[in-house]
Amino acid sequence: MRAAKTPIDIVVSEVGPRDGLQSVARTMATGHKKAWIDALHAAGLREIEVGSFVPPKLMPQLADTAELVAFAKTLPGLLPSVLVPNLKGAERAIDSGAHAMLLPLSASHAHSLANLRKTPDEVVAELRRIVDLRDAKGSHCLVEVGISTAFGCTIQGRVEPAEVLRLVRAAVDAGVDRIGLADTVGYADPLQVGTLFEQGIEVAGDKLSCAHFHDTRGLGLANVFAAWQAGMRRFDACTGGLGGCPHAPGASGNVATEDVAYLFASVGVPTGLNFNALMALRERVASWVEGEPLHGAIWRAGLPRTVAA
Amino acid sequence: MRAAKTPIDIVVSEVGPRDGLQSVARTMATGHKKAWIDALHAAGLREIEVGSFVPPKLMPQLADTAELVAFAKTLPGLLPSVLVPNLKGAERAIDSGAHAMLLPLSASHAHSLANLRKTPDEVVAELRRIVDLRDAKGSHCLVEVGISTAFGCTIQGRVEPAEVLRLVRAAVDAGVDRIGLADTVGYADPLQVGTLFEQGIEVAGDKLSCAHFHDTRGLGLANVFAAWQAGMRRFDACTGGLGGCPHAPGASGNVATEDVAYLFASVGVPTGLNFNALMALRERVASWVEGEPLHGAIWRAGLPRTVAA
Repeated sequence: MRAAKTPIDIVVSEVGPRDGLQSVARTMATGHKKAWIDALHAAGLREIEVGSFVPPKLMPQLADTAELVAFAKTLPGLLPSVLVPNLKGAERAIDSGAHAMLLPLSASHAHSLANLRKTPDEVVAELRRIVDLRDAKGSHCLVEVGISTAFGCTIQGRVEPAEVLRLVRAAVDAGVDRIGLADTVGYADPLQVGTLFEQGIEVAGDKLSCAHFHDTRGLGLANVFAAWQAGMRRFDACTGGLGGCPHAPGASGNVATEDVAYLFASVGVPTGLNFNALMALRERVASWVEGEPLHGAIWRAGLPRTVAA
Repeated sequence: MRAAKTPIDIVVSEVGPRDGLQSVARTMATGHKKAWIDALHAAGLREIEVGSFVPPKLMPQLADTAELVAFAKTLPGLLPSVLVPNLKGAERAIDSGAHAMLLPLSASHAHSLANLRKTPDEVVAELRRIVDLRDAKGSHCLVEVGISTAFGCTIQGRVEPAEVLRLVRAAVDAGVDRIGLADTVGYADPLQVGTLFEQGIEVAGDKLSCAHFHDTRGLGLANVFAAWQAGMRRFDACTGGLGGCPHAPGASGNVATEDVAYLFASVGVPTGLNFNALMALRERVASWVEGEPLHGAIWRAGLPRTVAA
């Protein structure tokens, strides 16, 4: 929507209130989440994954998602998205008025069975039902699929690129609006990233539009850069790298929003983000989850003299 | 020497005993330095910067450099290098029997005056005297120049690529054997790195052969990868990222040796390094500098299931 009207070439999509908080045991107060979303908007972010329509019993820390969508919609130009695990979640997402809903689809058969209790093809079938429901309701909510474990899996190890590309094709055929590739467990390397995104674009064109990296093993920003070189322009990130990795205590989760902002500022590509505002927000988020480790790199040394905030 | 005989495509050159320890106030016992060098050799490293022939009064923690060169030469296939600040240091390096000596040349005029009390062109003149001395002595010690602050400077800010390339040309004309570009202060970004190395190769051909990155702002590995894509095959690194950044407490210094080993293992490019041996060595080095923070990323989560140690 706004990409054509502004000089902003990169969309950094914040996933902290969902992906970040999902890995944090404690529940953040709704007021703090709203302050977080408000500050992100003030810092220039225009896409935020505000929560998830999973059953509140399973994830009580995200039970206020509908309220957060409603709040986010009051902020000019802000496009709230939500994660949905299935058709039931999709219905709630549509009813909430979210701009987009994201269904995770694991490219690893083993991971898909373990986490979603469905095969990847069963998830594709659900995706089709979600698109149909959205259309039947006359909703404009974008349907996005996030192909997780696209670069490897902690359970089955290697994930074949051909299988990822088959699922990209299946998602296109199912009628989704947007597709992302996610390195859920921090296995990706920049060579693999460049190749798979290039191949994915051949299959899905500009529907393949999001790159989601974790910095678990230090290659998060190298992978963001490789995906950018391959043509990606939207990147998920999380304030302060909050959330970590459940499989590796102390290791980072999502790449940090401020690190991604710094990377693109340093290569001279506009993101529309205010770096100092992101750094100040990092401190506030830290105070709201006291005791939870934050991650990321740029916060220690700050910007070089050669990069303007 | 060995590059032609083995399938190893990447040379990781350890600089911990010099660049790492230089930023650490305490003096590491010579016995521990020897154990470090020995363990690096056992882990597959074949180039190690073991110390510096600066006046011991200025840097007492590196006063045992001649003894370390002699020790390193007893290890089969290991090529010890040393840093030299000037002609006097070069004479000691030649006499020590080091395989290579590295003279730093700052591309930032302001940094050059502040740190070396010479202009860059005065350093080039010294370089010429060092080459002449080496030749007059009939030594085979390689003369390498490390162009520091090549991507920016904490004192003057921006460093013009044209000035870096002018110095690369001057170094070639001075008769050096090898040239490296160094991001001394962690200002580089991967776009800038790719461009400057490509341009440098046009000027110096395969004499431009080393990339030296600090991970001060989280882009160290992205920059290593960008330099590799531009054609570089030798990379400086430091066990455990020891040393930090004097301008940014808590921030990393050199990229960590084990992180660089992981990066290349993940993209499938042989380094000849044993990852588990490097991880074990990291723990030993930590114990020898107790209280000094180590850095790096891969040590937290360990290798993915998709990468063999």
